[in-house]
Amino acid sequence: MSVIMEFAIFPIDKGEHVSQYVKKVVDMIDGLPYKSELTPMGTIVECETMEECLSVISKANSILEQDAGRIYCTATFDNKPGKSDQMEHKMKAVRGK
Amino acid sequence: MSVIMEFAIFPIDKGEHVSQYVKKVVDMIDGLPYKSELTPMGTIVECETMEECLSVISKANSILEQDAGRIYCTATFDNKPGKSDQMEHKMKAVRGK
Amino acid sequence: MSVIMEFAIFPIDKGEHVSQYVKKVVDMIDGLPYKSELTPMGTIVECETMEECLSVISKANSILEQDAGRIYCTATFDNKPGKSDQMEHKMKAVRGK
Amino acid sequence: MSVIMEFAIFPIDKGEHVSQYVKKVVDMIDGLPYKSELTPMGTIVECETMEECLSVISKANSILEQDAGRIYCTATFDNKPGKSDQMEHKMKAVRGK
Repeated sequence: MSVIMEFAIFPIDKGEHVSQYVKKVVDMIDGLPYKSELTPMGTIVECETMEECLSVISKANSILEQDAGRIYCTATFDNKPGKSDQMEHKMKAVRGK
Repeated sequence: MSVIMEFAIFPIDKGEHVSQYVKKVVDMIDGLPYKSELTPMGTIVECETMEECLSVISKANSILEQDAGRIYCTATFDNKPGKSDQMEHKMKAVRGK
Repeated sequence: MSVIMEFAIFPIDKGEHVSQYVKKVVDMIDGLPYKSELTPMGTIVECETMEECLSVISKANSILEQDAGRIYCTATFDNKPGKSDQMEHKMKAVRGK
Repeated sequence: MSVIMEFAIFPIDKGEHVSQYVKKVVDMIDGLPYKSELTPMGTIVECETMEECLSVISKANSILEQDAGRIYCTATFDNKPGKSDQMEHKMKAVRGK
């Protein structure tokens, strides 16, 4: 199975500069056993199941709840049950000759 | 606590008409003990915790995985730890005099 | 033609309470000739064309740029060329007769 | 000025495999004078203004309307009026020195 998730999560009660909070989330994701990619707009993670992807959001939210009074999160999921390694495959399908 | 989630989930391998699949998800949400609201673009649910909101997505995804070979989902979350009844409050704050 | 857009736009450099800014955007949308619906997570607008929907975001952004140093916006679009009145139709299709 | 946009756009009436349609959009973006980055979940574009970013969505939608009866699009925008080169800056702020 393969679920690719793109998500962003950040406090919205801490003013314009939120990178110190986002950094904690990114460090947590780096420690997970999932393929992931940091982008200028969020993080892309590939898991086996939807539940694994959702648990990444849960962990990220728990980290931010320690400091923040309001947290905003956006996420999109592309779930292909029965497929694997879709991050690479999708890039090739669009970029390939 | 209060987390408001807006989400949409649907198969993208079933052609243009997906309401029969979406209906199953909406029926499931109707059976949950959370305040929710169907919109033309998705469903809005208010839960106590992020984990409860995420479990709604998990349940919706499980329903669609029974039929679909590819599922797309978008979600946004507005988490205000320490607050409650935010769906109503947010509407009043913007609409109120 | 019919494009339904769900979008949210708000400053993220103004602290936790942003309803005074969101209110200005909602008032602007109320003055437009499009069918629209305020939700606890954003606004849903139905236009004839994608360009009309995008111009609503542009107007909302211009309003917020007067005050804010950082603005975040999320949007989803469901475009059915050749259809009309989809906001109503979609609700009926899922809610049944 | 600097607006970073992350967006995805694809037909949802063409079955599971949509890369041939997405490829046309990616080729169009490659021809634009904006800094951009293809990801497994969409494309990230940095423009001077919101209007330039929105015009990229408009162009992408016009390409897909030639073939598709239903098009879905998601987008998020991070607008920092008065800043520039934010794609690079944001990555550095989170990844640290």
